[in-house]
Amino acid sequence: MRLALAQVNPTVGDIDGNVALVRDWTAHATDAGAQAVVFPELVVTGYLPEDLLLRRPFLAAAREALDSLAADLPIAAFVGYPERDGEDIFNTLALLRGGIVETLYRKRRLPNYGVFDERRYFTPGDAPAIVDVDGLRVGLTVCEDLWYAGLDSGDGADLLVNPSASPYYQGKGVERERMFGERAPEHGAAIAFCNLLGGQDELVFDGHSVVVNSAGEVVARGPQFEEALLVYDTDSGAGEVAPVLSTEEELYSALVLGLRDYAGKNGFEHVVFGLSGGIDSALVALVAADALGAENVTCVSMPSQFSSEGTRSDAKQIAENLGVHYLELPIEGAMTHYEELLAGPFAGREPDLAEENLQARIRGNLVMALSNKFGWLVLTTGNKSEMSVGYATLYGDMAGGFAVLKDVFKGSVYRLTEWRNADEGRALVPVSVIERPPSAELRADQLDSESLPDYDTLDEILRLYVEEDLSAAEVVERGFEREVVEKIIAMVDRAEYKRRQAPPGIRVSNKAFGRDRRVPITNRWSG
Amino acid sequence: MRLALAQVNPTVGDIDGNVALVRDWTAHATDAGAQAVVFPELVVTGYLPEDLLLRRPFLAAAREALDSLAADLPIAAFVGYPERDGEDIFNTLALLRGGIVETLYRKRRLPNYGVFDERRYFTPGDAPAIVDVDGLRVGLTVCEDLWYAGLDSGDGADLLVNPSASPYYQGKGVERERMFGERAPEHGAAIAFCNLLGGQDELVFDGHSVVVNSAGEVVARGPQFEEALLVYDTDSGAGEVAPVLSTEEELYSALVLGLRDYAGKNGFEHVVFGLSGGIDSALVALVAADALGAENVTCVSMPSQFSSEGTRSDAKQIAENLGVHYLELPIEGAMTHYEELLAGPFAGREPDLAEENLQARIRGNLVMALSNKFGWLVLTTGNKSEMSVGYATLYGDMAGGFAVLKDVFKGSVYRLTEWRNADEGRALVPVSVIERPPSAELRADQLDSESLPDYDTLDEILRLYVEEDLSAAEVVERGFEREVVEKIIAMVDRAEYKRRQAPPGIRVSNKAFGRDRRVPITNRWSG
Repeated sequence: MRLALAQVNPTVGDIDGNVALVRDWTAHATDAGAQAVVFPELVVTGYLPEDLLLRRPFLAAAREALDSLAADLPIAAFVGYPERDGEDIFNTLALLRGGIVETLYRKRRLPNYGVFDERRYFTPGDAPAIVDVDGLRVGLTVCEDLWYAGLDSGDGADLLVNPSASPYYQGKGVERERMFGERAPEHGAAIAFCNLLGGQDELVFDGHSVVVNSAGEVVARGPQFEEALLVYDTDSGAGEVAPVLSTEEELYSALVLGLRDYAGKNGFEHVVFGLSGGIDSALVALVAADALGAENVTCVSMPSQFSSEGTRSDAKQIAENLGVHYLELPIEGAMTHYEELLAGPFAGREPDLAEENLQARIRGNLVMALSNKFGWLVLTTGNKSEMSVGYATLYGDMAGGFAVLKDVFKGSVYRLTEWRNADEGRALVPVSVIERPPSAELRADQLDSESLPDYDTLDEILRLYVEEDLSAAEVVERGFEREVVEKIIAMVDRAEYKRRQAPPGIRVSNKAFGRDRRVPITNRWSG
Repeated sequence: MRLALAQVNPTVGDIDGNVALVRDWTAHATDAGAQAVVFPELVVTGYLPEDLLLRRPFLAAAREALDSLAADLPIAAFVGYPERDGEDIFNTLALLRGGIVETLYRKRRLPNYGVFDERRYFTPGDAPAIVDVDGLRVGLTVCEDLWYAGLDSGDGADLLVNPSASPYYQGKGVERERMFGERAPEHGAAIAFCNLLGGQDELVFDGHSVVVNSAGEVVARGPQFEEALLVYDTDSGAGEVAPVLSTEEELYSALVLGLRDYAGKNGFEHVVFGLSGGIDSALVALVAADALGAENVTCVSMPSQFSSEGTRSDAKQIAENLGVHYLELPIEGAMTHYEELLAGPFAGREPDLAEENLQARIRGNLVMALSNKFGWLVLTTGNKSEMSVGYATLYGDMAGGFAVLKDVFKGSVYRLTEWRNADEGRALVPVSVIERPPSAELRADQLDSESLPDYDTLDEILRLYVEEDLSAAEVVERGFEREVVEKIIAMVDRAEYKRRQAPPGIRVSNKAFGRDRRVPITNRWSG
C-alpha cells in the first residue's frame, strides 16, 4: 500500500479554506499513486479553535464540511474534526472512503497540561478502531494517544496512523522520533505520524512527519517547517527521508514560519519596528526580511541623547544590508516636552525609571502611529531573558502585535544572528552589533551588566526556574550563587504583571510565557 | 452541635499569612462556643495558586502548614490544602482534630470549564468520607462536588460540609442557594457551604456562605463581600440570616472588594487614572474612593482641543465632591509635537485613527509616568461594552494595571453611578455627566452613537454573543437587525488582539474576557 502523509497548513476557523486544502492535497496524493492519505489532527477546523468549540453552528459547519469531503474524495482519507454527539464533543479522526464517513475514532488521551486544555472541550473516547486498507490492518490514533505506553490499539494492527498537532519546541522532532521508536515495537506495528504545519498565535507546528517501522526505525521523514506530502510504500519500505536541520537553522526557521503565519493569517503584509542598533532588533530584522520580504519591512531608528553614534550608524547599516525601508525619528524633542509638562508634579524629584520609561513609550507611540496610519503590524523585539526579569517597558518597547523573540533567550539571539550571517556568507548584521556590550541606552552609560549577571549565567538560571520549575534552593544546588539566584527569581516573579500584557510571541521552548506558564499576578509565594 | 463557617480572605501563596488567618478565626469560633469550624476550599494556599501547584517545595510547605495547624487548633477544623501523593495532587479537605490530621477527603468533581482548570493540576478522588462530630454524621465535600445531582455522599450523613471557592458573578449567590436547596433533600442532609472571600486577580469571591437544612431551606446566611463567622446550631436550628444586597449594591460591592484586594495584595496604597468628565471614569472614581479612601486616589484631567468645557468642569467637580487629589495636564502641546515629528512619513495623509490614538497614548504616557515616579497603581476606566467592540486604545486608555469596569456593560455603569449618588443622598457625580451623550472626545463633535447602536441594544447583543455564546443567526432571532448584529460581532472578533493585552479586571459576569472566554486571535470563523 502506498500511504501519503499530508503535512498541511490550515487556518483556525477557516473551514472552507481548510476543506479546499484537504481536496488539493488529496489530489496530490492521488497523483503520487497513494491509496490513502492522512491529514493532521482536526484539519477541518485547524488546531486549536479554543472556545469556538463551544458554539454549535461551528461544530455543525465542521460536520457539514466532513460530509462534503466524504462525498467526493477519490481515495481513502483520514481527516480529523470536532465531533458533537449530544452534549459531548470528541476529538475525532474520520476515515472517509467510498463516498461515506466510514469510521469514526475518538481520541482517548486528552492532554490538559502545558499549552493544552483538551479536557475543557472534549470527552475522551473509550475504544480502539482498526480498519482494513488495501489488505493492511490500520489502527487509528490521534497525537497524545501514542505518547505513553499502554494504549490498547486493537488486535493485530500492522500500522498505526497518528495524525497530530504537536507544537514545536527546540529539539522536539528528534524527541518524537525517539518516542515513536519505543512505541512501535510495543505495538508490533509501524507508526505513521502526520504532524500539523504552521503558526497559530503563539504556537508553531513544525511538520516533521515520520514513519517508523515496527522495529522502531525511521523509514520516512517529512521536511521541517514546510508543507509537504510524505509518501511511503508499506510493501517496499521505501520513503523519502528529509535531513534534520541544525540547531540554529531549526530555531531560525521556526521564527520565520511563526512570524509569516501570524502576519499572513491575520491579514498583514507589512511590519514595522524600532531598530536600535542592538542585537535583538537586528535579529528581528533578519527574521522579518526572510519571512515577509525586505520590501514589506519598515525599520524605525528613534535615537535619543543617550543613543551612541555606534548604534545609530549600525541601525542604518543593517537596514541597508537587508534592503528594508528605513526611517529616522529622533525623540529628544518629545522627551523635553514631556519633562516640561510633568515639571509640576515631578518637582523636587530626581530623574529615574519614570523618565527612562517615557523614552521607551515615546518610541512605542511612534511605531503605533505608523501602524495605525499605514495598517502595518508592529513587532516587538524583546527576548526571553528580558521578558523574564522585566527588562522591558509596558506600552513602550512592549507595544506591538507580535513578539518575535519572546521565547528566545539572549544567548540564542547571538547564536542565531551569527548563524544567519554565516549562512549568508557576509555580515548582514555588522560585527560591532554582536560585540558591543548590551545596553538599553535609556540613560548615560547604561549597561545591562550593571544590574544583571552575564547572559550565560542569567539564561541558565532562568531556564531552570522558568522552564524546569525548579525552586531557588534547587537552582542554587546546580552551582549558582544564592544571592544572584534569589535576586533573579524575585525579578521574574515581580514582572508577571508585565508579561500578562505582553503581545503574543512564538513559542520555541518547552515552557513559554503565555498559555504555557500560568502563574497568578497576586502571589506572595517565592522560592 | 454548634458549627462555625469562617468565610475568610486568604492571599494566594502567602502560606504563613493564611495559617495565621486560620488560627485567628478558629479562636473566634472557639469563643463563639463552636465545636467545629469550616474554612473555604484550599485556604492554606489561597485559591487558585495555578502553576505554583507544579512546584514541590510549595506543596511541601502547604503540608507542613497543615501539620502545624493540626498540632494546636483547639477545636475540630475543616481545612483545605493541595495534597501531594507521589505523582498525583489532590484538592483535599482535611479534618484536623485531637492534635492530628484525622481524615483526608479528596475532591471528586474537578471543574475544567469557564475560569476553572482543575484537571490541569488535580487528580479526582474516588471515595466519600463521613466523620462523627459531636454525635452528628458529617459528610465531607468540596465545592463542585455538590453542584450536580448524583454524588455518593456516603451512608446516612446528617450534614454535608462544603468548603468552596465559588467566584462571584451577578446573582450567583441566589443561584447557589437554589442549587443547595435542591441538593439537600436529595441527600437527606443539611448542607453547610463556606465560601471564600476576597479578590484574586480577575476573580472576586463573595462569601455569602449559607446553611440549608435537609428540607432545602436557608437557615443561616453570611454577609456578602466581607469576612465573617457564621455560627449555626444544629440542635436548635438557630443561625444568623444576613440580608441579600440589592442588584446594584451587590455589583458595586464586588467592584470595591475586587479593587481593594488587587491593590492591597499587590502592595499598592494609591491609585491614579484619567478623569475625563465622562461616566466611566466617574464611576471608577467612586469605586476607588470607596475602596481605598479619597486620600489614596489621584485623578488626572488631560484635556485636548476636543475636550468640551462641560467635561472639563465636570471632572473637576467630581474630584472636589469626592475629595480626591486632582491634577490637570493638557495634552495639546504634546499632540502638536508628535504631528510635527510625523509630518514627514504622514505627508499627504488625512488625520484619522492614528491621530486619535496618539491623544489617548499621550494620556497613557502621563498616567504611567506618575505611576513610575510615585509607585501608584494605574486604573483603566473602559467598560465591557467598549472592550467588546474594541472602543479603546491599546497603550492609551488601556494602559494600566487594573481594569475596574472591564466586565461591566455601559448600561450598568449608568445604573451603578445613579445608585451610588442615591445612596449618598447627593450627586457625587453631577447629573450632567449622566445625561451627556457618550463621546470619546478624540475628534471634533465625535459621538459614540455615530458608529454604535444605543447602549441598551449594544449591551444585549453583546450579552448574547459574548456571554451566552449565541451565533449571529441566533442573536438575530431574538429580535435584532441582522446588519447591526453582524457589524457588532465582526467588531468583537476583530478586537480580540486588543483584549489579549488588556490589564486584568474584576469578573462580575458569568463570562468575562480573560481566562473565562478563550478564543484565538488568529481566527477566520465568524458567526
